[in-house]
Formats: sequence, C-alpha cells, structure tokens
Amino acid sequence: MQFLEILEKKRDGGQLSKAEIAFFIEGYTAGRIPDYQASALLMAIYLNELNTEETVWLTESMLYSGLVLDLGDIAGIKVDKHSTGGVGDKTSLIIAPICAALGVTVPMISGRGLGHTGGTLDKLEAIPGFDVNLDLDRYRDTLRRTGLCLIGQTKEIAPADKKLYALRDVTGTVANRSLISASIMSKKLAEGIDGLVLDVKTGRGAFMERLEDAEALARLLISIGNRMNKQVTALITDMNQPLGTHIGNSLEVIESILVLRGEGDPLRNDLVELSYALAAHMIVLGDRAASYDEAQRMVQQSIADGSALEKFREIVRQQGGDDTCLDDLSRLPTATMTRSINAVEGGYVCTLDALAIGRGSVMIGAGRQTLDSVIDPGVGIILTKKIGSRVEPGETLMEIHYNSEEKLAEAMPHFEGAISISNDPVPIPDVILKVLGEGDTNKTVRK
Amino acid sequence: MQFLEILEKKRDGGQLSKAEIAFFIEGYTAGRIPDYQASALLMAIYLNELNTEETVWLTESMLYSGLVLDLGDIAGIKVDKHSTGGVGDKTSLIIAPICAALGVTVPMISGRGLGHTGGTLDKLEAIPGFDVNLDLDRYRDTLRRTGLCLIGQTKEIAPADKKLYALRDVTGTVANRSLISASIMSKKLAEGIDGLVLDVKTGRGAFMERLEDAEALARLLISIGNRMNKQVTALITDMNQPLGTHIGNSLEVIESILVLRGEGDPLRNDLVELSYALAAHMIVLGDRAASYDEAQRMVQQSIADGSALEKFREIVRQQGGDDTCLDDLSRLPTATMTRSINAVEGGYVCTLDALAIGRGSVMIGAGRQTLDSVIDPGVGIILTKKIGSRVEPGETLMEIHYNSEEKLAEAMPHFEGAISISNDPVPIPDVILKVLGEGDTNKTVRK
Repeated sequence: MQFLEILEKKRDGGQLSKAEIAFFIEGYTAGRIPDYQASALLMAIYLNELNTEETVWLTESMLYSGLVLDLGDIAGIKVDKHSTGGVGDKTSLIIAPICAALGVTVPMISGRGLGHTGGTLDKLEAIPGFDVNLDLDRYRDTLRRTGLCLIGQTKEIAPADKKLYALRDVTGTVANRSLISASIMSKKLAEGIDGLVLDVKTGRGAFMERLEDAEALARLLISIGNRMNKQVTALITDMNQPLGTHIGNSLEVIESILVLRGEGDPLRNDLVELSYALAAHMIVLGDRAASYDEAQRMVQQSIADGSALEKFREIVRQQGGDDTCLDDLSRLPTATMTRSINAVEGGYVCTLDALAIGRGSVMIGAGRQTLDSVIDPGVGIILTKKIGSRVEPGETLMEIHYNSEEKLAEAMPHFEGAISISNDPVPIPDVILKVLGEGDTNKTVRK
Repeated sequence: MQFLEILEKKRDGGQLSKAEIAFFIEGYTAGRIPDYQASALLMAIYLNELNTEETVWLTESMLYSGLVLDLGDIAGIKVDKHSTGGVGDKTSLIIAPICAALGVTVPMISGRGLGHTGGTLDKLEAIPGFDVNLDLDRYRDTLRRTGLCLIGQTKEIAPADKKLYALRDVTGTVANRSLISASIMSKKLAEGIDGLVLDVKTGRGAFMERLEDAEALARLLISIGNRMNKQVTALITDMNQPLGTHIGNSLEVIESILVLRGEGDPLRNDLVELSYALAAHMIVLGDRAASYDEAQRMVQQSIADGSALEKFREIVRQQGGDDTCLDDLSRLPTATMTRSINAVEGGYVCTLDALAIGRGSVMIGAGRQTLDSVIDPGVGIILTKKIGSRVEPGETLMEIHYNSEEKLAEAMPHFEGAISISNDPVPIPDVILKVLGEGDTNKTVRK
C-alpha cells in the first residue's frame, strides 16, 4: 500500500477503507509516515470529511495503537463521563464520587485545560498532594479498592491520538467532527468502560458554538460507541455562561465540595442540576437503578447521607491528597488579592459570556496559554450573579481572585466585556438542552 | 503574523493577502515554517483553490525567493518557450537555434524528464560532451556571444519552487492549476525574459488530459505573465500521440537535427508544424517580424539556408558538445538491439497512446522512474506510423531500440497496448488546437 494513494483518494473525495485507515495510523504512530504527509491527509479529511464508517475505523485504529485496558477482573459495570470542555465545568469532581458511592465503577482518565476551558487534572492538583500521575497498576488497584480513580492519560493509552493531536493543533485541523470524535472515543474506550455519558457543550464558551453542530457531534460519538458495543448517553448542555459560580482550579474544588456537602445555593442550580443528571444517567448505564427517576433519587440520597462526600474523601486520600481540605476549605490555595466588578445600573443579567470569562481567567493564570505554561491554582472568579439574576445598582457581579496586578489589567476588559445588563427581566436559561442515545426518552422508555 | 491564521483562512475558503502569501513563501524558504504546516496549506490550496490575484502574488513571492536575472545588458528582446511536458517533444532543440539565427535572444533554462515525459536537459546530454550545468556567468556570456543558451535550473533561481515542488510531489498536491502556474512562471520570469511562448499540451500523454483544463491553465499562465508586464502567447497542442516520430534522448536529437537540416518526412509533419509555429510566435514577440506570416516565412528560410542548423552547431560547440555529431549522426549514442512491432491486420492507425508509449520508454531506460535513476541515452522508439497512417498487414508500426531484454519484456505490453487499428480511414489530427494570448488572432489582428 502506498500512502500517497490514500492521500489522493481522500483529496479527491473518496471513501477510505478500513485497511487504508489502519495503514495511516500504524505508519504514522511508528514514524514511517512523516508529519508533512500526515498533515496533508488531515487537511484533506478536514475539508472532504470522513463518513461514520470511516470515523469508526479511525477510532478503532487509534484505540488499538496502544493498550486497551481490560477491567473484567474488577467488579461492577464501568461507566465514565466525558465533557467536550467548558468554563467552570467541575462536574467530574462531583459525579465520580456520587457514582462510586452508589456502586458504579468510574475509571476516569482526564485531560488538562488548554485554551479557555479548564481541565479536571488541573483542578484535582489544586488539592495539596493529590497525584494524578498514577501508573496503570496503581490505577487498577485504586479502582478495585475505591470504585473510582482519577488520573491523567498515560503513554500506553492511544499514542496515535497524542501524536495526531499535537499535529492537528499546529495545522489548523482540530475542529473537525470526525477527528474530534475519534480522539475522544479512542481514549475513552481504552479505559475499559462498558458505558459512557457524554456532556456535549454548546454556546459561546463551547467548542461547538451552534446547537446543530453539538448535536451532530453527539450523534457521531454515540454511533462510534454503539458500533464498539458500548452504551452511550449524550447530554447537550448550555455553555453560554460558565457552569456554576466558581471558575479557577482551587475555587472549583471548593464549589465541588460545597455541592457534595449539599450546601446548595440557588445561584448554583445549573451545576447541581447538571451534575445530578449526569450522575443519574451513569447510574442507569451502570445498571444500579431501574429508572432514571430512581437514579435521581439515589443521587440526592448520596448527597443527603454524606456518602458521596465520604467517597470523595476516600479518593483524595488514596491519591495522596490532603483530605483535611474537605473540612477546612481555607487549606486550599488562595489568591492574595480580590477585585469586584459592580453593576453601574440595575436590571437583569442577560449575558455572562463564558468565552470572555474563560479567556480572562487564563490571563490571570487559571489556565494555560501554551502547553508549558504553569497554572496558578489559587486564582479565579466567583460569579455572584448569573444570567437572569436581578441586579441592584452598585451590587457586585463578580469577584476576581488574583495574584498579579499586571495580569489583572490585561484580563479586566475580558471580564467587563463579558457582562451585559438588561432593563427587562431575563429568563433563567436551561442547562440541559437535549438528551440523546440510551438516556433519550423519545428513543427508549425510561425503565 | 501567525502562519496558523493564514492556514485557517485558506482552509475556510478565504482569500489570502499579498502579505500573507509572502509571509508563507519567505518563511518556508528560510525554514521557519516547517514542512508539516506548509503541506497542510498546500492541501487547503489544492481543495479551496487560489484565485488569479492570489496566484500572481504567489508567483511573485516565489520569483523573488531567488535571483531574478536582468539581461538588460544583452542586446535584443529575450523570448523563451515553455512546454507543460509531453512524449517525443523535442521542439526546444529546434526552435532555440531557429530564433537565435533570426535575431531573437533565447535564454532557455530547462528541466529534466520525470514521469512519462522527457526533459530538454536529458536530450541535450545525449550529445557527447554537451554541458548543461553552466554557472550564471558563463550562461550570460554564452547568451551574449551566440544569442542562445541551454542550461538547467541553478540553485539561485526560484529556490522556493524547488523546495515546494519536492513537498508537493510527496503530498498529493501537484495537480493544482495555481500551484503549477506559479511554479512555471516563477522560474521562467527569473530568466530575465521579455516574452514567453507556452506550449500547453492536452490529451492522453499530457498533464492536463482535458482541453478545457489545458485552456484554463493557459489563460492563468497568460494572466500571470501579463500582470508581470510580459507578452505571452499560448498554444494548446495535442498530446494524444507522441510528437514527431522519435522518442528517447539520442533519437530525439537525431530527429531534431533532421528537422534543422530540412530533411522533412511526411510522417514528421506534426513536429515540423508545431516547431515552426512556436518559433514564428517567438519571432513575433521578439519583434523581428511584422506579422506571424512573415515570421513563418523567416523560419522556413532559416531552415532552407542552413542558418538554423549552423546556430545549433555553434551552441553545441559553445557548451562543450561534439558538433561532428551533426554531420555524422552515428556518433550519437545508440542502443545495441532493436525490435519491431508489426501490424497483424491492415487498416488505419486510430490510437497511438502517448502515455503508454511514454511509460514504456521510461521502462526501457529513456526516462527516470525515480529522481536518482540513470538515463540510457541510446534507447527509445521510432514510430513508423502515426494516427491516420494506412497500414498493410505485417507492416512495421514502431521500432524499439533497447539494451536489456528484461526491461523490454516489462515495457512491451505498454507499447503493444498503445496501438489500435481501425478498418475505416482515420483523419490526421490537428497538432495545434488553439492559440491564446498575444498570438491569438481573435484577440489581436496579426500585424
């Protein structure tokens, strides 16, 4: 087989065969196909697209470029969640202990933040001592012992994705549905899961700004999962405003602990609503509840009886973290300075641009501008108003926690530009826009 | 300026600015932009295309990536010819001395054969001693002294093209009109010419198989030339069958000398017709004739009075070649064996597939299969029939000159498959299909 023929076929709009896709992925991972040929194919794929079948084959090739974990020796149905990335999205920290507390095994391999979106690993590392770099033996062991484990991608998992993603990042070929799907699913399927709940974000702060693009991505992810005999539920969720009220690594840990403690705040509804829904769908896929409604009740119970919080304490301790933080939030990193943005006039919050807030938060040090940037865990933003909130003149809209006046000055226009206030009342937006796949009640009657 | 933004702009179908194209070419030539980013842009250009303006800017950037010769100190108007490549196309060897003999300066920088098409440099090197690797000082000196010079591309000329062409060759991005045009014109314009006659081939043995593609390429080449204040005439010519009767390096030199001697053969009409037309158009652009018809008469005169042949003798001698070959053709390299292909039945030749004959000739050693293949100058084919020729049963159709039985066995199916005979008479095809640009009588009345 000649790589140039594969390249010309996709360039001319043809459909690649399973063998051709495997030849590409194997050759590229092994270094036989150079970057400059791979990037030409990626651009041809970007512009001429892959169909569902080709995308499944690509996912399969990428999946088997590395180790595919078999967790058959660990009890229970293994279910994970994946989010396409948002601002203030700390649901993983909440739902993993909830599900583990309710008997669903959660083998969670997460990523770091890049661009304006945060990453689970960076958040976990805000907890002093928490080690996300466990090797696969310790990962299995921790999973067996506690029913969950929260680590970063190891070099054994989907090496093709690692190499391809780095190339896509510098060749303008990131934003393609098939390439995104194969990247997500090859990593997730390598974890050895039986089921997967997807949180596909849409709106200003999401990768897929338009609902129809988010839905198309979700449907493709579900197709791939089903073709690989995995149960998949996808939620399309709103990312026009940040999720919850806290943005920034330590601040998001704090908000997660508050949710796990059951210390709800009306403002925090969207985070609680989405976390409970994601957890309930995972519990249904994990076969621990006869219906979604029963699963919802179980989730609420795990918060009320403190079992979810105890499970979080257990995993923090297992992974070397200081679990006294859970009782004394002041032990978590904090910024040295705070600044408030206050309303000039009264009215109702009508925009709270997640993209602008995400970008601003990266500038003050909460995220990475390049791969080797060092994150400042203490900095971030606390929103005191969300879309639909009533605002009095002079009232605080958000509070910025920062360590550098210079960085704040650079970020400030983003924060200020993120907010707009209307005279007329603004409805509180729905956080869950659609449910597709296994959890879709239009497709399958909830048990 | 960020290269990734340029890449994303073309990926999304936008028009690149002059500055963006210059940033790409300068950065790539200097090695600041890596191959894997350049190839992604080439694929985006291939699929989303460049418009005429972008193509002109690309040509200009590539042109000024190296030395642009100023031949202002050499007398006369400088005119060159470029062919898009064909089988049996030896017109350069015929028209360069004709034009120089008639007072038009011909600064000809040519290429080598690759694929199924031949190259002028390889043909010239079949003449014992002929040196095509003159440096630019000797090139100028020879040009000043004899009115023509026939050399290969030097490293000073359009280095961006050299680097880009190598990348296009391995990334499936060769066959794009804009990239082809910029490659051709950046090299030709660097020669310091005032006018250019283009021979754009179409048909089975041509790069542009379809007439409309050849015409679109010709129009783009003319636009670029005109935008750079050069006069350009383009002939669209037939390449369904080889041009003339001889294919192979030494054999093509022989046929060229026969034409320069005026030893016409009715079978050889297409070569004579095309050579005379190309030369006459060059003479018009070189302002040596008041009309195309006058130029045609001058061309015929230069053959009849032996001045074109003498000019060829002069340049062979100037470039170190053995000019006694012109009087004794047996001094040119020959193959050791010949094999004829004879007609089984009588009729009329209706196809003589230039692509198949070109491929077969490469297999017996007349061309290169890879860049480092060594050419055998003596091997080749003499066609004894052309399309439209009457054939009697048993009569010879072509004669193969070869040095290896093994290579012949491999090539034979190509030669045999190239020919088909019909019972009904077949018209002799036109060699010149269209004239565009300066020489187009529909556009400008011939003076």
